[in-house]
Amino acid sequence: MIKNLVNIQISFQGELGAYSEAAALEYFPTGSKTKPYHSFDDVFQSIEIGDCSHGIIPIENSLAGSIHRNYDLMLRHNLIIVGEYHYRVKHCLMALPGVKITDINQVHSHPQALAQCEESITKLNLSPIPEYDTAGSARMLRENKNMNAAAIASKHAAEVYKLEVLAEDLEDNPLNYTRFLVISQDDTPLIGSEQYGFKTSIVFSLDNKPGSLFKALSVFALRDIDLTKIESRPIPGRPWEYSFYIDFIGLISDSVCQRALEHLQELATFLRVLGSYPRHNYYSQSNG
Amino acid sequence: MIKNLVNIQISFQGELGAYSEAAALEYFPTGSKTKPYHSFDDVFQSIEIGDCSHGIIPIENSLAGSIHRNYDLMLRHNLIIVGEYHYRVKHCLMALPGVKITDINQVHSHPQALAQCEESITKLNLSPIPEYDTAGSARMLRENKNMNAAAIASKHAAEVYKLEVLAEDLEDNPLNYTRFLVISQDDTPLIGSEQYGFKTSIVFSLDNKPGSLFKALSVFALRDIDLTKIESRPIPGRPWEYSFYIDFIGLISDSVCQRALEHLQELATFLRVLGSYPRHNYYSQSNG
Repeated sequence: MIKNLVNIQISFQGELGAYSEAAALEYFPTGSKTKPYHSFDDVFQSIEIGDCSHGIIPIENSLAGSIHRNYDLMLRHNLIIVGEYHYRVKHCLMALPGVKITDINQVHSHPQALAQCEESITKLNLSPIPEYDTAGSARMLRENKNMNAAAIASKHAAEVYKLEVLAEDLEDNPLNYTRFLVISQDDTPLIGSEQYGFKTSIVFSLDNKPGSLFKALSVFALRDIDLTKIESRPIPGRPWEYSFYIDFIGLISDSVCQRALEHLQELATFLRVLGSYPRHNYYSQSNG
Repeated sequence: MIKNLVNIQISFQGELGAYSEAAALEYFPTGSKTKPYHSFDDVFQSIEIGDCSHGIIPIENSLAGSIHRNYDLMLRHNLIIVGEYHYRVKHCLMALPGVKITDINQVHSHPQALAQCEESITKLNLSPIPEYDTAGSARMLRENKNMNAAAIASKHAAEVYKLEVLAEDLEDNPLNYTRFLVISQDDTPLIGSEQYGFKTSIVFSLDNKPGSLFKALSVFALRDIDLTKIESRPIPGRPWEYSFYIDFIGLISDSVCQRALEHLQELATFLRVLGSYPRHNYYSQSNG
């Protein structure tokens, strides 16, 4: 259920055709405008200065782990998480129209995409060439008119750069999901998802004392609140002390969540709620 | 106290002069041999096949956070952590002999080193040029005989490539430490450090049930065992499930640690001890 369609412009990091853009196009309603930015910092700034109403950022991949930079940026900026989306990463092999799979000997892509398709690349007897990003590899293929090379990128990138998809599902492990967060200055969730409930994301720090993390987790465990993620990040200037990022199942306005956070406030030296938003079922490919 | 000096050869990732090599030279006794390897995987393999007796790997930086790749490799390989060393990262500005600080307009280094020296670079009015690594930037300066450029790397790199140090302590935040782990096939600690006690590193996974992490941490909290680090990493093929890496104060043969791990075994679906080794006080720059 779309709450508001007017003036949605979504910032993402990367080139046109990036996986972040593909995820945005699946999550947001048809016709939403996307806008590419060079860095993740630029994505956050684009929302703060009002260039874009929303941003979409990858926060974790089921194979590679967290995108820690974006955890740090969530803390540094004052934006709100208003949604999440589990995007199924499907790597496609693409080349200029007319090029056959037997014509190619090189494959260009981001090192992580090349690593995730290692078995397929070996089977096809291709030399992997690391590049800055996946969509950028597709763009370069188009610009350089290289007839002996392919790129690994999203299907969406093939459409953007008018390339032909030679093979789909190139990834060795199909359980390859990236969890994206939708961020905004406005805390209205765009897309309702009551069927899977809600998730809340917080960040906090603790005194560096034995048992402090255990006590912090007790505020959730004693109330049967389910944690879905814990991530620790260093506190600059305080070596070997950490901020903890936790996601848990529940809506911030639920009384049990309220009481848990009041309890955590007694223990934490710092606590901030990053957002409370509809949960996305990762087995589903549909919105919400 | 050095336990054994014979046949020590230490593998590290990077080029000659890398921070990892500088850390190895501080940790290991004078005269120990170091050997560079291209990747972290190669470092682990060099020990498994017996090319090197020990390896030194960065596991965490106090500003940038964990080196997650090395957590994953600890799990994949069967090596033992036999020591830790907190290396104080001091970035030096270096150039060819005879070059003055007023001659240079460009500075080459790894993006993370450039980021950590951002204020100094701005004050000196230099253009930052990102490169593959710090020591590699120093090597290229020597090879290209560039008289208008400098590199940011370790003091050790300046010695290796016969460059002159134009400025020391270029980092904006002096609380810049990297924790290195010393790994081996042989579990004999090389350097005693009884004065600071011992640390133990483990990795485990849990059933994905509410409260499972809380229960796992209880085995330490109920015995007043101090945790110094928790890190979560994805389990490939099980989206949004995690392995937990924990460091705690104590020696594995202490009866309280034994009982805590037996208790954890009751709760964990998987548990492995990665090593139990002398603790290094990070405020001290001396060995052990």
